[in-house]
This record gives sequence, C-alpha cells and structure tokens, in this order.
Amino acid sequence: MLAIGVDAGGTATRAVVTTLDGRCVGYGVAGRGNPVSAGRPSAVGAVLEAVGAATVSAGRALSEVSVIAAAVAGQPASGAGAESLQAELSAAGFTGRVVFESDLLATYFSATASGNGYAVVSGTGACAIRVAEGRIEATADGLGWLLGDRGSGFWIGQRVAEAAIRDLDGVGRMTALTRAVLDHLGIDPQPRPGAERSPELEELVSALYALPPIELASLAPLAFRCVEDPVAAGILRRAGERLAESLLAVLTEPGPLVVGGGVLFRSGPVRDAFTGRLGGSADRLDVIPVEDGVVGAGLLALRAGGLPPTREALARLTETLALVRRSSVHGAPL
Amino acid sequence: MLAIGVDAGGTATRAVVTTLDGRCVGYGVAGRGNPVSAGRPSAVGAVLEAVGAATVSAGRALSEVSVIAAAVAGQPASGAGAESLQAELSAAGFTGRVVFESDLLATYFSATASGNGYAVVSGTGACAIRVAEGRIEATADGLGWLLGDRGSGFWIGQRVAEAAIRDLDGVGRMTALTRAVLDHLGIDPQPRPGAERSPELEELVSALYALPPIELASLAPLAFRCVEDPVAAGILRRAGERLAESLLAVLTEPGPLVVGGGVLFRSGPVRDAFTGRLGGSADRLDVIPVEDGVVGAGLLALRAGGLPPTREALARLTETLALVRRSSVHGAPL
Repeated sequence: MLAIGVDAGGTATRAVVTTLDGRCVGYGVAGRGNPVSAGRPSAVGAVLEAVGAATVSAGRALSEVSVIAAAVAGQPASGAGAESLQAELSAAGFTGRVVFESDLLATYFSATASGNGYAVVSGTGACAIRVAEGRIEATADGLGWLLGDRGSGFWIGQRVAEAAIRDLDGVGRMTALTRAVLDHLGIDPQPRPGAERSPELEELVSALYALPPIELASLAPLAFRCVEDPVAAGILRRAGERLAESLLAVLTEPGPLVVGGGVLFRSGPVRDAFTGRLGGSADRLDVIPVEDGVVGAGLLALRAGGLPPTREALARLTETLALVRRSSVHGAPL
Repeated sequence: MLAIGVDAGGTATRAVVTTLDGRCVGYGVAGRGNPVSAGRPSAVGAVLEAVGAATVSAGRALSEVSVIAAAVAGQPASGAGAESLQAELSAAGFTGRVVFESDLLATYFSATASGNGYAVVSGTGACAIRVAEGRIEATADGLGWLLGDRGSGFWIGQRVAEAAIRDLDGVGRMTALTRAVLDHLGIDPQPRPGAERSPELEELVSALYALPPIELASLAPLAFRCVEDPVAAGILRRAGERLAESLLAVLTEPGPLVVGGGVLFRSGPVRDAFTGRLGGSADRLDVIPVEDGVVGAGLLALRAGGLPPTREALARLTETLALVRRSSVHGAPL
C-alpha cells in the first residue's frame, strides 16, 4: 500500500509517493496549484498532473494508492474543487480516499513531527499558525493580497513597484530598484522632451496595470537582488517585522517554529528583522527553515491512513525524497 | 453657438451646456465615466448619456454645439476611446470639435480662473497637480488603486476593511468600523462554536474578494460616519497627511489651491490633518473646496472655442448652473 502527499503552492505543486513506513518511492512536480491565485480548475489540474508524474516516477499505479492528502491554501474540503478532484482521480483508477489539509500544516510537518508548535510561511501570500495536537489551533493573516498577506512576496513586490514609481515621479528616494524593475519588465522608452511626467513612469504604470495584481509578487526577488540598496533593504526589513507581528498574534508556549516560503527561507534582512521584532520570544523558539511542504504532505497522507507523524518517518521521508529528487531523470532543478 | 463641458468622474458624469458668455442653459448627469475604473466602453457611454441629457435639458440640438470638452481621468486624447466618442457624437448630429482635458484641470477651473495654482483631488483616486499658464505643469500620484492614490477613497476603504478584519482576527484594535463594515455588506452569520476563526471574518473576506478591488472605495464613507472612533479617525488623519505629501511634491509658488473630491470636500479629520501636514505652506495658499469639475469643464470647452477662462465667466457659469440644477425637473439631489 502507498500514500501520496501533494503540496499545492503558489508557484509549484509537488507530489510525493510514500510507502507506509515513510520511504519515498516517487516524486512529481506541476505548475501552481494554489486555488486562490491560480483559480480552481487550474489548481485541480496541477494536483492531478503532479500526482500523475509522481506515480509514473514511482513506476506504480494509482490503484495501489490508498490515500491522497492534498495540502492546499484555503482547504477546499468541500465545494466544486474537492468534488472534481475526487471524480478525476477516480476516473484515473484511484479507489482510495482524498483528504484535504492546509498547505501551512504541510509546511509545518515538513520540518517537525511535534504535535505542538508554529509555522510562518511567506511565499506569494503570508500566514502564521499555531499547531496544537497536530491541528491548526490559531491563524493570523493569510488574508490574501488585497486585505492582508503582510510581509509576503506580493507585499514586497507591491512596495518594490511603488518605490520605483515614486523614484521616477520625483516624490520618493532614488533607488536601484527603479532600474531593476524597468529591466525586469523590458521597459526602455525613448526620451520625450517637455513631457509632464517621465515616459518610463507612464510605461511602467501601464505595464503593471496590464498584469493580474497578484503578479506584483514577481517583483519581490528584485528586492533580494538589490539588498545593498537602502530602499530595498528597508522593504525587506519591514516585511520581516510584519511576519513577526503575525507570529506574535498566535504565539503562546515555546515550541518549534517552522519558517517556510521563499521570503523567509533565505537569511538576510527579512530573517534578521523577523528575529529582531520577535525579541525575547525568539529564544523560546527552535527555528527550522523549510523549502516546501511536500514532506509534510506525505506525513499528512500517512496520518490519514492511521499512522501519526513520527521523527523517524519524517527523517526517512526527507532523506529518501532527497535521493529521488537527486536521481530525477531530467536532473532539472526542481 | 454653444459649448458643452463634461466632467467624467469615478462616481458620476456631469455635462453642462453653456453659451459663449458662460451662461448655463442645460445640465445632465449619467453614471461613472472614469475610463480607468469604469472600463473604456462604459466611460464613452456615460459621456454620451450626460451630453444627451444636457442638450435635452437645454432644449437644444447637438448640431448647435461647436465644441465639447471631455474632462476625463488619464486624458485619452488618442486611442480607441477618443475615436469612438467622436464617432458616436457625429452619428448623433454633432459637427463640432471634441477636445480632451484632464479631469483634474476641470476641477481646478471649477474654483478659480487663475492661470497658476494647484489642485488636490481625492475621490475614488487621488492626485495633486500644479497648474501654470492654464496647463498642468506637474503631477504627483494619481497612480491608481494598486500603485498609489494615497489618501483616496479607495485607500481609505481598503484601510477600513483591514481594520475590521484585524479586529475580527484579534490582531488589531477593536473598532466601531467592524460593525459598520459587516452591516454595510449585510453579513450576519450564525455562531459556529469551535471554529478556528470567527465566521464573520471568513464571510467578510469572501465578500470583499467577490467585489472588484476598486469597490473597496465604497467603504470609505464608513470612516467618516465613525469619526468618533479612534481607529477610523486615525485612518482619516493619515489620508489627509498622504494628500498633503502629494501636494508638497508639486508645490512651488503661493497660489490658489483647489481641493476637490468627496474625501477632501468636507471638513473634519482629513482636512485638519491635510492642513497640519502642510504646515507653514498652508498660509501661502488660498484654499477653495469644490464639489465637482463640471463648471471647469464648461470653462475648458469655452477655452477650446477661443475664450480663455475669466473670473466673470466662472462666476456666471457657477451661478447659472446652480439655478438650472435647482430647477431640474425631477428635483432629485444630484
């Protein structure tokens, strides 16, 4: 018998096939699977694609899989997305059970098997959770790009765009982000003498409004690239502080703190400001960065099959997944 | 001979029919005409509708009109919107000239005939301009809801939504805005014991994401209604400060300062904070609040016909328009 864990993220969807003792025997990747940012039909498609790729990589059939845990943002445990996923998996020969879990819980269990602790995830969106007895007990933020997601990739990218615009508009500080944003968007206009505003500014504003708003998150990496620039560093520091504030809103007892998502994973101004803003609370936390939530999704699949997360299963799945990833046929960085 | 000025705003489009000496003989209103927030086809439709209503109210034919000045956000002097407006007007019997002007300049000339001065407009969006020799010489902000419009109705409404959400989420201060927002959106859910987050919070977030983002501006009036609440008053004060910062970015010489749009028109925390943030600069400015830009659009139409704005024409058009508005057949508040 096998279990499959799927981590449906804002930029990629990853699936792991595991034996009941936590040995990874297959792994697959597909496009973005976050139902909020990708739209529900394409999210279901990404989950199916990742599951398919993982079973092919395992050389096994879907009929051998007894449970699939789909860790997705917003936990669509009911509704059209859940039904259509179950229906499509059945059509592909799957006879087992699908359970839906939070992508945040998958990130959490990718780094620890402890039933009690915290996770702060900042990718395209941002959220903090408190985990108690293996379930999410409290959540802060995770409210989406329009209303929250403070300290997320979107939040950073929007501020990068604003910094470039305010520089070009002559009301903000000069910043290396301006050139970086213009280059990123391929904007290189001809000078127009006598124009009321710089032609770069008008082209930049038009280009940004032509994108779906969530795509501002694609500007976040520019802040990390311009980290020597005071404006960029300031944005990153404020992102770290906002993320710490979300964590502080759910923080009670000491425990492991899993930090996930591209924004918090690397060291630098975000992590420094995050730790600084936590102050004394940081000493009571065992901080573990984690790259994605696929191992935790695997553990959640095993839990749905009656096997609660253990240190041993976590370690085994992490190690064997690394081996499978390394030996992937294409050798492409995943 | 007649001229028509049209002020196409984010919430309504107003048209005035004027004689060449600035006497209002007709007035009409239609829906939102801002091409950015309303979308281009419906913006053209609103301008046509307002022009039609104004000529009917004047009891005159479009063929008697020699020039129409359309004051719209973003000045679509070229492009599909301008062409389709000219074509539709021709089809309706108009043989004169259409000129496009900035809605900000129309607001400016609704309050002063001076060739040099400033306007700060905060309605759905927000912008500051410096006028020199009757033309816009410098602009600050006006960058739209996603990238700027600091201190605008959208900006306020987004912060009202965030304040309510953070109150319900237990991470922000308690505020009267929460009840106001839930009532405004008709949210009254049943308690669900043991739920991880309040059911109000989940319904509120869903309801807000179901709206087009720009509709957050519809929450701005709640801040004015809850002005005794410290959180609401804080949002309004910060809006006033942001608007002052935009003005300071274009401020050079003393001059008239026209303040327009629903946010700055009324007295209270926004205006107080605006004046406070301007500091000593406020003394060098002659502040004139104005309700909309239709009188200025009329003056811009006359200017396009060869008659530059004068104090006399401004006063005459303002007075005669007020008479026409008061005697409007339906007597509805416009």
